[in-house]
Amino acid sequence: MDFALDETTTSLRERLVDFMDEHVYPSEATYQEQLDAAPDRWSPPPVVDGLKEEARSRGLWNLFLPGQEGAGLTNLQYAPLCEVLGRSLHIAPVATNCAAPDTGNMEVLHMFGTDEQKEQWLRPLLDGQIRSAFAMTEPRVASSDATNVETSIVRDGDEYVITGRKWYISGAMNPDAKVFILMGKTDPDADRHRQQSMILVPRDTPGVDVRRGMKVFGYDDRDHGGHAEIDFAEVRVPASNLIGGEGEGFAIAQARLGPGRIHHCMRLIGIAERSLELMIDRAAERVAFGKPLSDQGVIREWIAESRVRIEQLRLLTLKAAWLMDTVGNKGAHTEIQAIKIAAPSTVEWIVDKAVQVHGAGGLSQDFPVAEWFAQVRTLRFADGPDEVHKNALARHEIRRRSARA
Amino acid sequence: MDFALDETTTSLRERLVDFMDEHVYPSEATYQEQLDAAPDRWSPPPVVDGLKEEARSRGLWNLFLPGQEGAGLTNLQYAPLCEVLGRSLHIAPVATNCAAPDTGNMEVLHMFGTDEQKEQWLRPLLDGQIRSAFAMTEPRVASSDATNVETSIVRDGDEYVITGRKWYISGAMNPDAKVFILMGKTDPDADRHRQQSMILVPRDTPGVDVRRGMKVFGYDDRDHGGHAEIDFAEVRVPASNLIGGEGEGFAIAQARLGPGRIHHCMRLIGIAERSLELMIDRAAERVAFGKPLSDQGVIREWIAESRVRIEQLRLLTLKAAWLMDTVGNKGAHTEIQAIKIAAPSTVEWIVDKAVQVHGAGGLSQDFPVAEWFAQVRTLRFADGPDEVHKNALARHEIRRRSARA
Amino acid sequence: MDFALDETTTSLRERLVDFMDEHVYPSEATYQEQLDAAPDRWSPPPVVDGLKEEARSRGLWNLFLPGQEGAGLTNLQYAPLCEVLGRSLHIAPVATNCAAPDTGNMEVLHMFGTDEQKEQWLRPLLDGQIRSAFAMTEPRVASSDATNVETSIVRDGDEYVITGRKWYISGAMNPDAKVFILMGKTDPDADRHRQQSMILVPRDTPGVDVRRGMKVFGYDDRDHGGHAEIDFAEVRVPASNLIGGEGEGFAIAQARLGPGRIHHCMRLIGIAERSLELMIDRAAERVAFGKPLSDQGVIREWIAESRVRIEQLRLLTLKAAWLMDTVGNKGAHTEIQAIKIAAPSTVEWIVDKAVQVHGAGGLSQDFPVAEWFAQVRTLRFADGPDEVHKNALARHEIRRRSARA
Amino acid sequence: MDFALDETTTSLRERLVDFMDEHVYPSEATYQEQLDAAPDRWSPPPVVDGLKEEARSRGLWNLFLPGQEGAGLTNLQYAPLCEVLGRSLHIAPVATNCAAPDTGNMEVLHMFGTDEQKEQWLRPLLDGQIRSAFAMTEPRVASSDATNVETSIVRDGDEYVITGRKWYISGAMNPDAKVFILMGKTDPDADRHRQQSMILVPRDTPGVDVRRGMKVFGYDDRDHGGHAEIDFAEVRVPASNLIGGEGEGFAIAQARLGPGRIHHCMRLIGIAERSLELMIDRAAERVAFGKPLSDQGVIREWIAESRVRIEQLRLLTLKAAWLMDTVGNKGAHTEIQAIKIAAPSTVEWIVDKAVQVHGAGGLSQDFPVAEWFAQVRTLRFADGPDEVHKNALARHEIRRRSARA
Repeated sequence: MDFALDETTTSLRERLVDFMDEHVYPSEATYQEQLDAAPDRWSPPPVVDGLKEEARSRGLWNLFLPGQEGAGLTNLQYAPLCEVLGRSLHIAPVATNCAAPDTGNMEVLHMFGTDEQKEQWLRPLLDGQIRSAFAMTEPRVASSDATNVETSIVRDGDEYVITGRKWYISGAMNPDAKVFILMGKTDPDADRHRQQSMILVPRDTPGVDVRRGMKVFGYDDRDHGGHAEIDFAEVRVPASNLIGGEGEGFAIAQARLGPGRIHHCMRLIGIAERSLELMIDRAAERVAFGKPLSDQGVIREWIAESRVRIEQLRLLTLKAAWLMDTVGNKGAHTEIQAIKIAAPSTVEWIVDKAVQVHGAGGLSQDFPVAEWFAQVRTLRFADGPDEVHKNALARHEIRRRSARA
Repeated sequence: MDFALDETTTSLRERLVDFMDEHVYPSEATYQEQLDAAPDRWSPPPVVDGLKEEARSRGLWNLFLPGQEGAGLTNLQYAPLCEVLGRSLHIAPVATNCAAPDTGNMEVLHMFGTDEQKEQWLRPLLDGQIRSAFAMTEPRVASSDATNVETSIVRDGDEYVITGRKWYISGAMNPDAKVFILMGKTDPDADRHRQQSMILVPRDTPGVDVRRGMKVFGYDDRDHGGHAEIDFAEVRVPASNLIGGEGEGFAIAQARLGPGRIHHCMRLIGIAERSLELMIDRAAERVAFGKPLSDQGVIREWIAESRVRIEQLRLLTLKAAWLMDTVGNKGAHTEIQAIKIAAPSTVEWIVDKAVQVHGAGGLSQDFPVAEWFAQVRTLRFADGPDEVHKNALARHEIRRRSARA
Repeated sequence: MDFALDETTTSLRERLVDFMDEHVYPSEATYQEQLDAAPDRWSPPPVVDGLKEEARSRGLWNLFLPGQEGAGLTNLQYAPLCEVLGRSLHIAPVATNCAAPDTGNMEVLHMFGTDEQKEQWLRPLLDGQIRSAFAMTEPRVASSDATNVETSIVRDGDEYVITGRKWYISGAMNPDAKVFILMGKTDPDADRHRQQSMILVPRDTPGVDVRRGMKVFGYDDRDHGGHAEIDFAEVRVPASNLIGGEGEGFAIAQARLGPGRIHHCMRLIGIAERSLELMIDRAAERVAFGKPLSDQGVIREWIAESRVRIEQLRLLTLKAAWLMDTVGNKGAHTEIQAIKIAAPSTVEWIVDKAVQVHGAGGLSQDFPVAEWFAQVRTLRFADGPDEVHKNALARHEIRRRSARA
Repeated sequence: MDFALDETTTSLRERLVDFMDEHVYPSEATYQEQLDAAPDRWSPPPVVDGLKEEARSRGLWNLFLPGQEGAGLTNLQYAPLCEVLGRSLHIAPVATNCAAPDTGNMEVLHMFGTDEQKEQWLRPLLDGQIRSAFAMTEPRVASSDATNVETSIVRDGDEYVITGRKWYISGAMNPDAKVFILMGKTDPDADRHRQQSMILVPRDTPGVDVRRGMKVFGYDDRDHGGHAEIDFAEVRVPASNLIGGEGEGFAIAQARLGPGRIHHCMRLIGIAERSLELMIDRAAERVAFGKPLSDQGVIREWIAESRVRIEQLRLLTLKAAWLMDTVGNKGAHTEIQAIKIAAPSTVEWIVDKAVQVHGAGGLSQDFPVAEWFAQVRTLRFADGPDEVHKNALARHEIRRRSARA
């Protein structure tokens, strides 16, 4: 057992921190100004373009992707870098081409795409030339239960015909999101986990209607392509757009989830660390009733609890990454679920305290903490609400125990 | 001891519920449509005008104000009505001329205003012809400690000169908010609670610069006049604009707070009740893993806990109202602080669960729960953060105990 | 609506407080000494005998019992007295003949007993000459579900034959507990709530085997007759020992529960108040790192939260009592369940903080707080675990809502 | 980074698990019977003697002690073994001569003892022939603040004279505890952390009065030597009994604490794991309202949360151990405090749920969970209450941040 980062990670992390210090943090104000000046663009402010070039030139590009096409890192190696990226959530992931949902989509194409699909979509995604979206959640059903998905994918000759309504499709308001990976049902009568398929739907296909941006606590997240409601009205795509075979959608989604959760959780930890820093800074500088807030017992309790919780959460997430690398998705099952359960609520607690220490400003546009709160809160639903995961993890524990006894 | 509402309250409550059922709830969709259609207005949508007339014609007007100028209700009588108003937070309080911050401002003018001040400002406020704002919080200091206030009010001949920066001045973005009641310091060297004064500042006074709307999470609350940042640059007003005498600002603020907190808390309870209704409705209609959410143990626990907490909170708030009526602000001190501590965190917990049961929709613009969450969260700061109130309440308990022992 | 106690209650409460101040609190040390000196007695120390006489002479006797045979108080009138009794949990209830489980048993006999049963058992119980126990919980099944009860009551000629095992039968180790009211099944095939009956079993009936005292966190509660495990091996009692008719056991248990829960909760509130006093006293007198604990923010937060929670809980319990008086057990159903849910966890939280402020002493025999904790913890199971009650309350809420919609 | 145990640990752990399976668990019933049969012995039941021999013969002896005199394990290697020992808390640590407080005392003697002290006390302790105690906590002061210690150690010629009162001296009721390591003040006027010294006090020294056993909830913990209150009335010991020099007591205590906390926390994790197993087993076997408890959502949430929390806590504790091994006590400071904060409250939460799932039995002597609860609760005070540690950790965070900024 060894808790030290390996050399590759340590060295890459240093380079990444330098990039953050020299380019990313100093761009945050410009980013916000450009955003305020162009309120209707559904894409990142132009300052990001230069950062992308800079990151790429420093070899800080596609860090998330294993194998030759990416940086070749293991999950355990990428995780600490992902935490650093989370510290400047709006800028750093995009600047390094490590932003969701493209990361997951690229992984899917990398693992399951045909050569043709890779050439057409994976290549420009890896080059940061286009963006993409992942169309899974539906407004009319509890999408945490995959069998609830109502969007149909029906074979008709050389084509598939797609009909359904999706919402909260992150990134899809951005016109640069040229392709959607859509989850629907090819066979509603198949086994529970063989009903679903994934298919590539180019944005400009007739029948695709991007209707509106959904909000998150008043935020439209327009700098990240928002969260679209999309109507698919008898949308026809070539049969070759299917990813994998019919009925493999659920399995592909599972494969996509593993690394995705680690990324989500590590980014959250980055948010938590920066929230804690802001909390401490603010507490040290504000005076009430004759002493700085940082001398007050309750604030100190928040600071201590934040540190204690972050340390535990990070270790669990890193262990989940290590298990994925060593025993695979399946062996890491419990840990993958555990971080999904632990991370959002833990980090929400910390960000809430950071908000509180900032007073009214904590809810405002002048500090990042309110928006972080909204971001983190979302993850108590993403990939299914916490409650579903707790139920599944418990069922697994009960079974394991009864197998032993 | 008697837990039944008296006849006046029961009867008024019935009339108010009828008004809500017949006019307010049915207007909610229109309200939202008008809002969406006119994104830049800093005032309620026009549908509210008709509702105001209707409410006034039904005698549901200025219910909050005791005495002949208002509805003549006690705090205990008004409180249950205020809960009903909170159920349609955007519309009902405005429609009945019971919306903050006007209510507090009218109370202040009613109790402490000169005849001239009443004629000029209280009259049109009572008639619902103008709106107002209360300028207290400052960006640079922890305003929960009143001695921190930096805005200066300096006598210069027949005038006062006001210099300072305020923010989160709710309602002030609305051009109809024709007057601000401002809290500043007339004598920074006086006793801790004699340094502050309150003064009327007409919106159109030279030197008043309403700079921008502050946000709450991503909401600008434009339909309620937003939350303004305002610069006061050597603003000159007649000396007769002072409310009460110099040094009486803190005492007036305290008098204003008592009823205000009861109003806040009862409105929150209205939000909590409606959140619980939405939670139950959604849980009953959504199916996951083969059964409705409302059959699942964890959801039931949320429903039960919500009911248990609401009942306790309502009783405490009503008791605080009763104490204010029977023994006054001072005698009700502990209870007034207790509801300030209990209400926001209790209702936040409930609304959070309502959000969670709604899935992604719970954070969206399609359901009111996300916005309620933001509203409730704000109240963990308003009139000072929870922590300040807990500290004060505890000090009081410790003193009372040592006095007895 | 009126939050003031009525005159009868106020006056009785004053007399009770005087009795507590003059006799009960001053006897607590003696009580403990006598207990320590006679470690094997399963009954209260002798000092209680004098207190009983004193209480009776002051008219502070059977306060819990409505009607002519008791003090004739409503639930709402008795509740505040019950809180005072809870402050000296070991002594005051016994001294005033208001101790569980006798209170519930006397209520049952009062409401459902035959004249003969009343003469034989209710009379000496009302006179404080004997004690009793209530035999419901069973070791082998989850007794919160009444249909799980396995003890059988089988008619055989003029007798009933009782077979089964009970445990945690509070008070039954005391040889003065001359009679048990036992819950068993007369007809396992009847409707869910018509299977159970209640029957009187004199302690000295052949086949009754009081096997051992069950513990609660290491406490045997011997001064209150402990918590017995009892074997009933073909125990024969006259058929006239049945309380009410066959199949009425569940209904009688429900009737018994209502007032019992109010008593339990009010006693808990008495414990909470005294715990808060001890917490404050200890915090004021202990110094660490240069200042008294009572100046430290976290301790103050505990004190404030304790006060806020107690006030809410008391009001809810009083309202439940008022509802029972005005609309009966059924109309008070939600509130009766709500206090069962709220009281144990609320008071446990407070007592836990009192323990913590006392340091190691808080867990010791030198302060009452550890024992209070054990007492309160028990009530998270009594009459069924919290979880069962939350589930039932939620189901009720869901139904009520769907009935409205 | 590597989350796998090394070979030494894996192999020792397997041997230890075999010993537990073959000898320890099967002895638990006998242990309890012998305890019940001899209620007044302040030492472990005789069954332990055979287990000690067995453990020693298997090389499972003094596992905690680094270096040649012990098993030569690092903290990181011992920690997973310590968790296993915690699963049978009463038996396994004693059987392997790894029981507190001897472990800490042996470490102190091992690191700071003179050859003579080692010969006289360390040797028989290592051989399991005698026991010992650590006399630090005092009844009259908040001992978490070391400067509060009032016991005096005064030099008088070739002797030291010790005067003071200690309590909660674990193990000291056992007559086999032949020596106490006592913490007192040699110089109350020295610097804050140079006032204290440690000294060896043989049990039979005149003036040592072991007065009574303190309880924890209702437990006297007699099988582990209880928790003694001891009066030291001008107790004279040779000057050579001082451990280290005058004024080094605080530093030695700190050195003692590091490994001790890891042991405490790992044992707690062992308790947590076994509590979770019991929780699952009970939930699977109990039926209420038509389905096993393990099918109920709330119970599943408890099981899932328990797993999630245990995993995080274990990793943090192991990391603290690794830091102690690699960068020493000082470098591990934050983590050592973090586990002190996290472990007791986390495990208390889990054991509380295990209690709840067991119903009344959960509080009884028939299942171990109630006693575990008491044990765990104690650790929210041991080495200072959680609040002190949170305050210190926060201060450290604030300083580190301001050093960076």
